[in-house]
Amino acid sequence: MKKKQSESFRQVIERKEMVKVAGAHDALGGLLAEEAGFDAVWSSSFEVSAARGLPDASVLTMTEYLEAAANIQKSLSVPVVADCDTGYGNNLNVAHMVHEYESAGITAICIEDKLYPKMNSFAGGNQTLLSVEDFRSKIETAKASQASEDFFVIARTEALIEGLGVPEALARCKAYCDSGADSVLIHSKAPTNSEVSEFLSGWDEKVPVVVVPTTYPDWHADEAAREGVSVVIYANQGLRSTISALRNTFERIQKEGQTTSVEDDIASVSDIFELQNLSDWKQLQK
Amino acid sequence: MKKKQSESFRQVIERKEMVKVAGAHDALGGLLAEEAGFDAVWSSSFEVSAARGLPDASVLTMTEYLEAAANIQKSLSVPVVADCDTGYGNNLNVAHMVHEYESAGITAICIEDKLYPKMNSFAGGNQTLLSVEDFRSKIETAKASQASEDFFVIARTEALIEGLGVPEALARCKAYCDSGADSVLIHSKAPTNSEVSEFLSGWDEKVPVVVVPTTYPDWHADEAAREGVSVVIYANQGLRSTISALRNTFERIQKEGQTTSVEDDIASVSDIFELQNLSDWKQLQK
Amino acid sequence: MKKKQSESFRQVIERKEMVKVAGAHDALGGLLAEEAGFDAVWSSSFEVSAARGLPDASVLTMTEYLEAAANIQKSLSVPVVADCDTGYGNNLNVAHMVHEYESAGITAICIEDKLYPKMNSFAGGNQTLLSVEDFRSKIETAKASQASEDFFVIARTEALIEGLGVPEALARCKAYCDSGADSVLIHSKAPTNSEVSEFLSGWDEKVPVVVVPTTYPDWHADEAAREGVSVVIYANQGLRSTISALRNTFERIQKEGQTTSVEDDIASVSDIFELQNLSDWKQLQK
Amino acid sequence: MKKKQSESFRQVIERKEMVKVAGAHDALGGLLAEEAGFDAVWSSSFEVSAARGLPDASVLTMTEYLEAAANIQKSLSVPVVADCDTGYGNNLNVAHMVHEYESAGITAICIEDKLYPKMNSFAGGNQTLLSVEDFRSKIETAKASQASEDFFVIARTEALIEGLGVPEALARCKAYCDSGADSVLIHSKAPTNSEVSEFLSGWDEKVPVVVVPTTYPDWHADEAAREGVSVVIYANQGLRSTISALRNTFERIQKEGQTTSVEDDIASVSDIFELQNLSDWKQLQK
Repeated sequence: MKKKQSESFRQVIERKEMVKVAGAHDALGGLLAEEAGFDAVWSSSFEVSAARGLPDASVLTMTEYLEAAANIQKSLSVPVVADCDTGYGNNLNVAHMVHEYESAGITAICIEDKLYPKMNSFAGGNQTLLSVEDFRSKIETAKASQASEDFFVIARTEALIEGLGVPEALARCKAYCDSGADSVLIHSKAPTNSEVSEFLSGWDEKVPVVVVPTTYPDWHADEAAREGVSVVIYANQGLRSTISALRNTFERIQKEGQTTSVEDDIASVSDIFELQNLSDWKQLQK
Repeated sequence: MKKKQSESFRQVIERKEMVKVAGAHDALGGLLAEEAGFDAVWSSSFEVSAARGLPDASVLTMTEYLEAAANIQKSLSVPVVADCDTGYGNNLNVAHMVHEYESAGITAICIEDKLYPKMNSFAGGNQTLLSVEDFRSKIETAKASQASEDFFVIARTEALIEGLGVPEALARCKAYCDSGADSVLIHSKAPTNSEVSEFLSGWDEKVPVVVVPTTYPDWHADEAAREGVSVVIYANQGLRSTISALRNTFERIQKEGQTTSVEDDIASVSDIFELQNLSDWKQLQK
Repeated sequence: MKKKQSESFRQVIERKEMVKVAGAHDALGGLLAEEAGFDAVWSSSFEVSAARGLPDASVLTMTEYLEAAANIQKSLSVPVVADCDTGYGNNLNVAHMVHEYESAGITAICIEDKLYPKMNSFAGGNQTLLSVEDFRSKIETAKASQASEDFFVIARTEALIEGLGVPEALARCKAYCDSGADSVLIHSKAPTNSEVSEFLSGWDEKVPVVVVPTTYPDWHADEAAREGVSVVIYANQGLRSTISALRNTFERIQKEGQTTSVEDDIASVSDIFELQNLSDWKQLQK
Repeated sequence: MKKKQSESFRQVIERKEMVKVAGAHDALGGLLAEEAGFDAVWSSSFEVSAARGLPDASVLTMTEYLEAAANIQKSLSVPVVADCDTGYGNNLNVAHMVHEYESAGITAICIEDKLYPKMNSFAGGNQTLLSVEDFRSKIETAKASQASEDFFVIARTEALIEGLGVPEALARCKAYCDSGADSVLIHSKAPTNSEVSEFLSGWDEKVPVVVVPTTYPDWHADEAAREGVSVVIYANQGLRSTISALRNTFERIQKEGQTTSVEDDIASVSDIFELQNLSDWKQLQK
């Protein structure tokens, strides 16, 4: 029985006009994203840290984020895009990170221009950005460290998150492209897509633009595509629906004292067997 | 900031008449079970393997199951009961397992009388049981390997799963008690609780009985308690509700092209921050 | 800075008449074996378990053996041959093992025809062999599970270790070749190479033969080559010299109360820097 | 079979006038240090990174250093002192680190006043120190995060390594004591013990002083004790002797083509069995 093999993220992005990506923190989430037709899976640091009950603040280590990303990738036919935060330190950490992620079969990573240790972009507080020069050096280091041509590096700017404005975000992203970034991610915590749209109208580089519409949920993917977006990441809705579902189910079990009514609303044991690909595995038994 | 500390499972079982336990595969599930008032968390092999997209068939290793159990325990104020399948091999594996689980802060484990490698109890197929003598030897090994008095070993029989009947299940469980088991788990895949109830009416040992009402969801915990059950494990409903929720959410995002309507049905980003205990962590920042 | 890349073991064995392999349990041992001119590194279960202070008895898990093998491979330009004991269980475990080892960049594994959990071949005691049919099924499963043509599976028989004689060893190895094994390893604990030599004179298959001359140290590699051996593994001499060196050094420090005289006999701090490739890493610092 | 249990480092330091500690990177090194009579084992970042063939530059993660330290501790009856470098980031990382190390059974850690990511102290280059205020905050965070009274935090200053002079080293160490450090480590790369001795004559605090005489090997432990040292760490001589031994052994095997002469200089297979405690484990077999 062969293991699933996946296209690289570069192959996906070259094949599709608009690439839709869903966030996950484990292989199960990745499998269900693939089942729903997503083109790739975002191994979200926010999700992975929440699954551990810990803040999204560089408290978990690269080893733990990599383990999550690699375990997701191993179960899928679509590529993982690994959320690698700041690159976990300086240039040495970035080089080692690329060696490790690529060795583990990851074909795309994303690093952002904040200082290590980072704090989650929606968590408020002062989050100083790295100098443009230092982040360019990280991108160059990452690109010089990859073994295969195919490996894909997304440079994410937090300029809008830090309130530095669209011109600064554009200037940073252009500089990152000059340093070899294969794509840029423009992040925003505004309640509408307006500042991202403004960024897009000022963007004249060739590399694809990635967006993460968490705080502006009403921005339709088709509209984003028309404005120049190539990749949309739905980064944490899966986790958030998991929390609601677990809360509801656990409360009902406590209240009802049995699980008959819950049964109607949840997947069956056989559904799990299918997701585990159990029938194929059982054929290996002598 | 201190880490949460937990009671041992033995303390919980001595304090409460009826102990309710929910299955989980990561700290997030454990936190939500604790929030809903469950007394302990079952680090379910079925859940942990499904989270990896792999069958519940001893394919994942003790290292991986232990990592899941330990990560759950570290985030909780209630104890984890670790599903340890067959003990991962022979007596040597059982001794090492007890050393490792206890070192990692786990206070209760459960081992079952199937052969390694096992297959999930609901997956059908022939699943030979270990001889009574060999499983007694495993229980004795486990008890002789624990460092603290408090450590708690649950012996689970699969006699009913294998169709060997209630008398065999009773004989096995009594033998397991004689070998030092702190508790027995009587597992059944019948569509009603009748064979488990028959077991309970024949049970005259002092040690507490554990049940897992997956296939007989209508058996109320109060009724189970009246019949002599001390611990009820709702082993996989959390996972199953997670699957339903992820399917629903991912399908809607694909269909709707944006996430406005999904927003109404899922936890907020702030909810996640609370589960991560973010405000306490932020106070550590200088 | 690129990570070292390695040939596959298949490429090495096709390129060289006689392949010399040294055992190791960590990347450092692997690096020093490579430095000394060995063609490949054996990630020895005996060494890896000893490095943990635990018996070579399937007590450590596949996860732990794989981590050791992968960490060695990542630091080398020569391939690792992973000692995978019995395949860690049944056919399902073998399939999963191949998926995992191949994902981690390992190009050659070795499995043996003992029952799981195994005991070290030199540790005495009764060690029942798997039936020929069951081990053939494992080999077939392994070969059907590999993703690349290049992946190399060595089938090891313990027939001589169990005192079953050369004819049984030959019969088993031929059957294993028929099932697709890329090579066979004939293991012996005799004080001379006579039974291995007898095996070789009866061997008329095409696939290369591997030997491990631990108990017959005087068998020269050139002589082994003349008799038909393709691969010699010096499986644990590195570990054994490490133990002697640590004993000597630690005792002297205790006795002498300072380390001046020890300095003359041990590598320098700069030597370590070179093995860590520090100067290249430092160039990444801005 | 019970697992070995260990005293805490605090118990050792209260019991002995002079505590001798040997560096190790795995359980085997720890076992041999214990065998030679060392009172504790230093899980050295320099050794652990070298064992992976990587620089001692915060490239490996806390997860990997913790795994090494925990695996050493599990095999010993003497305590591990964990080399925790800079604490792996800011205060949040330090708090999480203490939670994790204490959960894993480690009773003493050491953190140093360099910036993350650090570079090895002997590797040259500019290594800016953290401000006194920020490092005091780390120490306070560490002490406020520990669960047991027993947990022991060593504050290490790199002031002498950075050429800041003895008065600065003294001022820093006194400030660290005021913040709750249980001990201070004064590190030096001078070719003699003179600056460390000068530090000691200016030291009038109650907490014990730790030294690491790597570059001044002729300083006898008895002399150090007379000058006020409580703990001497022989941090990397074990690793360096391992390298020499592996080089010698591997070269001889290559040159001699067989291992007869090597046999005389290396531990036997039975020696390894003893270190693995094999006979006790075998008694668990049925």
